Amino acid sequence: MTSFKFELLAQDERGRHGKFHTPHGVLQTPLFAPVGTQATVKALTPLQLEEIGATLILANTYHLYLRPGEDLVAEMGGLHHFMHWSGPILTDSGGYQVFSLSRQREIDEDGVTFRSHIDGSIHRFTPENAIAIQEKLGADIIMAFDECAQPYDREYNEEAMKRTHRWAERSLRAKSRMDQALFGIIQGGVFPDLRKQSAEFISSMDFPGIAIGGLSVGETKEEMLEVLDIVEPILPADRPRYLMGVGSPEDVVEAVLRGIDLFDCVLPTRMARNHAVLTRTGRMNLRNAGFARDPRPIDAECTCYTCQSFSRAYLRHLIVAQEMLSASLLTIHNVHMLIMLMHDLREAIRTQSLHSFVEAFRSNYQKHRPKGT
Amino acid sequence: MTSFKFELLAQDERGRHGKFHTPHGVLQTPLFAPVGTQATVKALTPLQLEEIGATLILANTYHLYLRPGEDLVAEMGGLHHFMHWSGPILTDSGGYQVFSLSRQREIDEDGVTFRSHIDGSIHRFTPENAIAIQEKLGADIIMAFDECAQPYDREYNEEAMKRTHRWAERSLRAKSRMDQALFGIIQGGVFPDLRKQSAEFISSMDFPGIAIGGLSVGETKEEMLEVLDIVEPILPADRPRYLMGVGSPEDVVEAVLRGIDLFDCVLPTRMARNHAVLTRTGRMNLRNAGFARDPRPIDAECTCYTCQSFSRAYLRHLIVAQEMLSASLLTIHNVHMLIMLMHDLREAIRTQSLHSFVEAFRSNYQKHRPKGT
Repeated sequence: MTSFKFELLAQDERGRHGKFHTPHGVLQTPLFAPVGTQATVKALTPLQLEEIGATLILANTYHLYLRPGEDLVAEMGGLHHFMHWSGPILTDSGGYQVFSLSRQREIDEDGVTFRSHIDGSIHRFTPENAIAIQEKLGADIIMAFDECAQPYDREYNEEAMKRTHRWAERSLRAKSRMDQALFGIIQGGVFPDLRKQSAEFISSMDFPGIAIGGLSVGETKEEMLEVLDIVEPILPADRPRYLMGVGSPEDVVEAVLRGIDLFDCVLPTRMARNHAVLTRTGRMNLRNAGFARDPRPIDAECTCYTCQSFSRAYLRHLIVAQEMLSASLLTIHNVHMLIMLMHDLREAIRTQSLHSFVEAFRSNYQKHRPKGT
Repeated sequence: MTSFKFELLAQDERGRHGKFHTPHGVLQTPLFAPVGTQATVKALTPLQLEEIGATLILANTYHLYLRPGEDLVAEMGGLHHFMHWSGPILTDSGGYQVFSLSRQREIDEDGVTFRSHIDGSIHRFTPENAIAIQEKLGADIIMAFDECAQPYDREYNEEAMKRTHRWAERSLRAKSRMDQALFGIIQGGVFPDLRKQSAEFISSMDFPGIAIGGLSVGETKEEMLEVLDIVEPILPADRPRYLMGVGSPEDVVEAVLRGIDLFDCVLPTRMARNHAVLTRTGRMNLRNAGFARDPRPIDAECTCYTCQSFSRAYLRHLIVAQEMLSASLLTIHNVHMLIMLMHDLREAIRTQSLHSFVEAFRSNYQKHRPKGT
C-alpha cells in the first residue's frame, strides 16, 4: 500500500495539511474534488479543469454502472483514459445514489435491489459487486459499499450502521486490485454514541483512508459539526479523512478546522447551472437585473479565466439569452473559488494562522453581500 | 480606408488566396467565420475558438439589437470587449433575420417593421438605423441593409433587388465610423440577368468588400453555383468577396473554385448540437449505437483537441447521457474541420494545385462513409 502513503506536513490546532500519494499523482490536502457524475464534470473539458487547478475528481459508480456500464469503461481503458483525466479519480460505491436517486429499493443483509432512475429496470448492488464495478472503472480511490440512512431515526440508524460495518468487512475482502485505495465509511446519523462506535469500528480496519458519510443529508449545521467533533479524536492521524458530499465554502472551512482532509460536492457545479456564483463574501445570482450593466468581473480579486475575461453584464446576457457558455464560465469560476479556498486553507495551516484565517472568513462571509444579491 | 487593404497573394484559375487587413488583425483568405449569433459562438469560450484557429467571427445584429441591445454593448466597450474576442468581427445588417426569424414584417421603401421572435414587440429597421446599430456594436466589418427574397419569384426579386440597391446607397451615406469596413450585398434570386445587374451595381459603389446574399435559402446547388459563375467575372479583383450563410465543406470547396474569399455558416456549430460531425469524407451522427464501443477518434488525422483526447465511444456516452460537454467537444471538432479545410484550400491555391485538390475532395467526399453512418 506504499503508493497510497499519507504524509502529514503541517498541523494547526486540529487543521491538517498533508500529501496523499496515488498512482496518478500526489494530492495536496485539504482539497476539494469537483464531481464528474457521468465521467464529466458538467460543462467543463478536462483541459479547463486542469487550468482551474483541480487535482482529484469524483465520478459516480451508480451512474456509470447504469450508463455506459463498467464493462464498456474497462474496454475503453478505464475511467482515466475514457474521460481523458490523467490525475487521480475517486469513485463512490453507489450506496448513496441507490438511496437518494433510484425509484425503489429493497435492502436485505446481502445487498440492495433497486430500480434505475433512467428506465425503471431492476438492478442489485452488494458489497462484492460494488467493489467489482469500481475495480472495472479503475479509479485511484474507491469506496466501501454503505447504507446512507435518514439522519433522525435512531433504531434504523443503528441497524443501518451495523449493516454498513458488515458491508465494510465484505468490501475489504472483495477488493483485489493493488493500485486502488479502498476507503471505509462511518455512518450513524446524528447520534453521538453511534458515530463514536462507527468511527472506532471503521478506524480499526485496514482502510488507507476513512470517510464520514450520511452528513449534509437533512441535519442542521450544528449537528453536522457536532458529529465531526465526536469523530475526529478517534480517527487515526496517519490516514486521510474524507467528508462525503460536503462542499459549501462555509462548511468546508468549519470542517477543515475539525481535521477533515478531503471534500467533494456538486454545489459549485450545480449552482453555476442555476446562474449562481460564489464570491469571497457569499453568493449572488447573475440572472438578477441589477447586473445587466455591471462592467465588473464576478470577483475583482479572482484569477480565474471567467473573471479575467468577462463582465457580470456579459455573463448575465448569456444567461438571459440561454447560451450554454454561461454554464461553462460560471462553473469555471465556482470550482476555481473552492480550489483557491483550499489553497488558502493549506497556506493558513502551513503558517500556523488557521484560527485567524477562519475568524476573518466567518466575519466577511455573508456580511458584505455584493449589490444586487 | 487603408486599414482595410485587400492583398491578392496568389491565384489559381479563379481561386484566390489573399490577405485582408482589419483594425483587429490580418485575415488570410479564403476563410470560414464561425457564427456567434448572440455574441458567443455557441458552447465555446473565446480561448477555445482561438485554439481552434478561428480568425474572423460573425455576430448577428438582429439578435444583439433585441438582446442585450446595442447601447448596452457600446456601454461595455463594444462587441470585442463585451465578448472578449480580440480578433476581427463581422456583423450582418439584420436584413436576413428580419425575413427569416421575425414573426411578422411589413416592408416599405423606407425600411421594415417587424415583430420580435422573442416577445412579439414591434421594431423597425431602416438602412440608417441598421448602420447606426452596427456602429454601436463596433465590428470590423459591417453589412449594408438588404432585403433577402425567396429565390424563385421573378417579379418580387426584381423589386427587392432594386430596393436593396437604394438601401445600399443609403447604408453607405449613413456610415460614419472610419474604423469599420461596410460591405455591399448582391441580391437577385436565381435569375441570371438580375444577379448580373446587381453585381454590376454593387461593384460600382465604394464598398471595400462585396457580399453575395440570398443564396443557400432554398435554391438547388446547381442554381447557387450558376449564380457564382455569373457574378464572379463582374466582381473587382481588388476587393474580398463574401458568400453569406454558406459553409458546408462541399459548398465551400466549389465556391472557392469560383473566386469566393469569405464564408460564414451555422452549419458546423448547429450540427454539433445535433450530435453530427464532419469528417474528411462526409458526416456521421455520433448518437448512432454503432459508435458505442468505438475506441477511435472522430477522425484519425484530425489535430483538434477533441480528436486528440476522446474516443467516439466517450463522445457517444456524453450524448446519450445528455451531457452538455458533448456540444462543446463536437463544436470544437466541426469548426476545426472547416478551418483546416480553408487552410488546405489556401495552400492548394498558393501551390497552384487547386484543381487536383478539388478533384480529390470531390471523389472522396460522401463516397467512403465511415461505418455506422
